[in-house]
Amino acid sequence: MIAEFALIERLGRWLAGRGDGVEVGHGDDAAVLAIDGQAVLAVDALVEGRHWDPAISSPRDVGWKAVAVNVSDVAAMGAKPVAAVVALHEPAPVALAEVEACYEGMAEAAARWGVALVGGDTVEAPCRAVDLAILGEVAPGAAVTRGGAAPGQRLVCVGALGAAAAGLALARAGLAPPAGADRADAASGGTSLPQAAGLLAAHRRPRALPAAGAALAAHGATAMLDVSDGLGADLTRLCVASGVSARLEAEALPIAEGVAAAARALGVDALDLACRGGEDFALLAALPAERAEAAVAAAAEAEAGVPAAVIGWLGSHDPETPVRLVVDGVERRLGTSGYEHFTPS
Amino acid sequence: MIAEFALIERLGRWLAGRGDGVEVGHGDDAAVLAIDGQAVLAVDALVEGRHWDPAISSPRDVGWKAVAVNVSDVAAMGAKPVAAVVALHEPAPVALAEVEACYEGMAEAAARWGVALVGGDTVEAPCRAVDLAILGEVAPGAAVTRGGAAPGQRLVCVGALGAAAAGLALARAGLAPPAGADRADAASGGTSLPQAAGLLAAHRRPRALPAAGAALAAHGATAMLDVSDGLGADLTRLCVASGVSARLEAEALPIAEGVAAAARALGVDALDLACRGGEDFALLAALPAERAEAAVAAAAEAEAGVPAAVIGWLGSHDPETPVRLVVDGVERRLGTSGYEHFTPS
Repeated sequence: MIAEFALIERLGRWLAGRGDGVEVGHGDDAAVLAIDGQAVLAVDALVEGRHWDPAISSPRDVGWKAVAVNVSDVAAMGAKPVAAVVALHEPAPVALAEVEACYEGMAEAAARWGVALVGGDTVEAPCRAVDLAILGEVAPGAAVTRGGAAPGQRLVCVGALGAAAAGLALARAGLAPPAGADRADAASGGTSLPQAAGLLAAHRRPRALPAAGAALAAHGATAMLDVSDGLGADLTRLCVASGVSARLEAEALPIAEGVAAAARALGVDALDLACRGGEDFALLAALPAERAEAAVAAAAEAEAGVPAAVIGWLGSHDPETPVRLVVDGVERRLGTSGYEHFTPS
Repeated sequence: MIAEFALIERLGRWLAGRGDGVEVGHGDDAAVLAIDGQAVLAVDALVEGRHWDPAISSPRDVGWKAVAVNVSDVAAMGAKPVAAVVALHEPAPVALAEVEACYEGMAEAAARWGVALVGGDTVEAPCRAVDLAILGEVAPGAAVTRGGAAPGQRLVCVGALGAAAAGLALARAGLAPPAGADRADAASGGTSLPQAAGLLAAHRRPRALPAAGAALAAHGATAMLDVSDGLGADLTRLCVASGVSARLEAEALPIAEGVAAAARALGVDALDLACRGGEDFALLAALPAERAEAAVAAAAEAEAGVPAAVIGWLGSHDPETPVRLVVDGVERRLGTSGYEHFTPS
């Protein structure tokens, strides 16, 4: 066991001190940050057994993901992530190596996206959870909400769909490397699909796309959100908030490499993984038709190696069928069956 | 049981929409806030059974407290609280009335201190916890840290000491009204001390002091923090961060009304309750000697009914005995035995 204050001191090495806009870093009552423009604020909680399986995701993966999912929320506003604070829930006795690995993962992701980890709180709790709050900045009035889409606009998707869901399903089926295994180990795993490690990485260590979010905003996006619960569920939210409907072309969807092979191995439908899987943290944006292609090009340039495409167009409000998916010329209803934490009654 | 998204919708009535600096309120990927100056960011987690006893604090109390402890962190920087987001951990099946009461308490406290509740996350977890992150604003360079105190300065305390600890101890001893009882019930309780309800209210629904924090900062405070773990523990932190020592006069401490009677009823030392109790959320500030009295007067005027006093003075760095307490002319060492969540090995 380790005293709380000693633990916080040990973890301090992963936290940011002063500098680069951090006026007051960790170790005070609150952090103080210089920001340009308006403040963007979000919080996301990850709970062990609920948001991650310790047999599949290592503590370092969890730390990374806690930062990534929050950076993605800021990205979806067209804003720039600045700083984060974390409330770590940890059962007693403290598994010090795991807590440190979790902080290491947070620090890696924070460095990846230029986020200053400026402090937090460590509390004893029945199970591990990582609640991270993020501060971003955006030019006054420039934030892109979910509510600004209009009929006649194009819908753009940046980021590959289905990878996280396919990777998680492969891991659950024993067809992907275990928690903590790196890519080299994974490649030598006899039972894994060749693409398994890459797909599983999308689940364990998702990539947030703040540069794409900024590019889409700069190129005229009028509505945007990130795909955390599934394309169908999240796009329905954008449609409801904006009072529009969406019609997607299945062939245009940027389905991640390896999802088709994973779907065959798992005996499931690849399109279903892409549309309902969630946790891909792709960005969906609505843009005027004449600006969509330039926005796609700018977003692809901003995020090397990430697919970007016009995937459909927006029509007038349709409360019955907000999202339609055209598969082989046939229109289907794309439902809202994204992942919910509480089962409907 | 209720679906997560339906739950979030129900809770939306306690959350702020646009207006008064809220550019984007709840219901989007992140909230957007107009702030003046630099951003102040903090997070505090409250866990059931650890930070509150459901037999002593009602869900409404817990919601209030989650906001108050975070507002206190912002106040201790001399900053103004602006907005908050919450991650609520809730076991399944969701106790809807209790979750709503918790949000009601958060909304009450948020309204009390002008904080916009702009969203959050609701997750299923093994036990209830309320993790709240707060955003504040402060003029560039004006934040007051723990590290700016200097020898020769006076130490000021705003807020009554010992009330929260006394109230909690009375409740545990069955000498205070149960959770959910209001003051009228409490007054009629035959077994309660007359002061019990007031003392217990300090534990259940603490008062943050942002107006006092701003007044102390405006009157030249060079270091400040709030008393969350106990006067001895927190003042030691200020001394260590600033490289000073402190000498307090016991007679000068603003011990809360009723603490002496509670201590007698409990068979404990009133001074001990005041010095080690914690959770009073009083503010401690270091000021130049010639400005201390004016700062005390300004803080008292800013927070009606809250005691404020010069309680001691600061000397040169003393790593062995950072804090001394003079009781009846005799110097004692005031230790750091504030409340720690993890027991030292």
